[in-house]
Amino acid sequence: MGVHRCWGCGSQNEHGLQIKSYWEGDEGVCVWRPQPYHHAWPGIVNGGILAAIIDCHCICTAIAAAYRAAHREITEPPLIAMVTAELRISYLRPTPIAELLHLRAMMCEQTERKAILTCTLSALGEVCVRAEAVIVRPRASPGAGM
Amino acid sequence: MGVHRCWGCGSQNEHGLQIKSYWEGDEGVCVWRPQPYHHAWPGIVNGGILAAIIDCHCICTAIAAAYRAAHREITEPPLIAMVTAELRISYLRPTPIAELLHLRAMMCEQTERKAILTCTLSALGEVCVRAEAVIVRPRASPGAGM
Repeated sequence: MGVHRCWGCGSQNEHGLQIKSYWEGDEGVCVWRPQPYHHAWPGIVNGGILAAIIDCHCICTAIAAAYRAAHREITEPPLIAMVTAELRISYLRPTPIAELLHLRAMMCEQTERKAILTCTLSALGEVCVRAEAVIVRPRASPGAGM
Repeated sequence: MGVHRCWGCGSQNEHGLQIKSYWEGDEGVCVWRPQPYHHAWPGIVNGGILAAIIDCHCICTAIAAAYRAAHREITEPPLIAMVTAELRISYLRPTPIAELLHLRAMMCEQTERKAILTCTLSALGEVCVRAEAVIVRPRASPGAGM
């Protein structure tokens, strides 16, 4: 999944977070290890960067679901581009910086132009952050020219 | 405002975003220039990093408001620490990457333990993102040992 140069998921953005999203059944999953400098307080991950990886993982999952619904491979042109319209995040407990973070996104609603997903972010088996994202397909592709 | 090593606002985090928040009357303001690699699509800022700077700016504003309500200087110990409980973001239009971004946060509700803020992020005079944040003061300071 993903766009090559996106700061969140782009494999060719050397300054980016380079998250990788995969299907596990009907869930989009992602495992990501924060860097030591991604902290807010000692030992605790900055909430903003958690919002960033949740946002990007939800977009990647929604795009993959759109390709899946169209019975197309993700590498097959034309590109399906989607963007976030709404992101609602609940920070339930501090997220430890020294652990692998596990994201799981589930599609709740899917039409050709819109997807609503829920996403959890867990560490050490505990859900630290819960989110809902509304992802939409713009009429003009923002990826034109990439 | 801010904590020295926080990835969002820490002046001593060389890998961080180093946002700076100030009072302008009763509004917390912040001006930030994205780097070229902070894109989602060509010319458009990644929504996740926008969530990150909004989150950190709202926390900084809430902490500054708490010091102000206590008639204390921000540098005066003991530290007042606050964390995000809820963040709701509406992406209204694409945010251009080549422009200065202007954030304005307003306190809507303030008690000793909780603050609710609205925040806008604008470029070229147009609001691109609108957000609401619920910021809380944990009973045990996450900054212990900083």
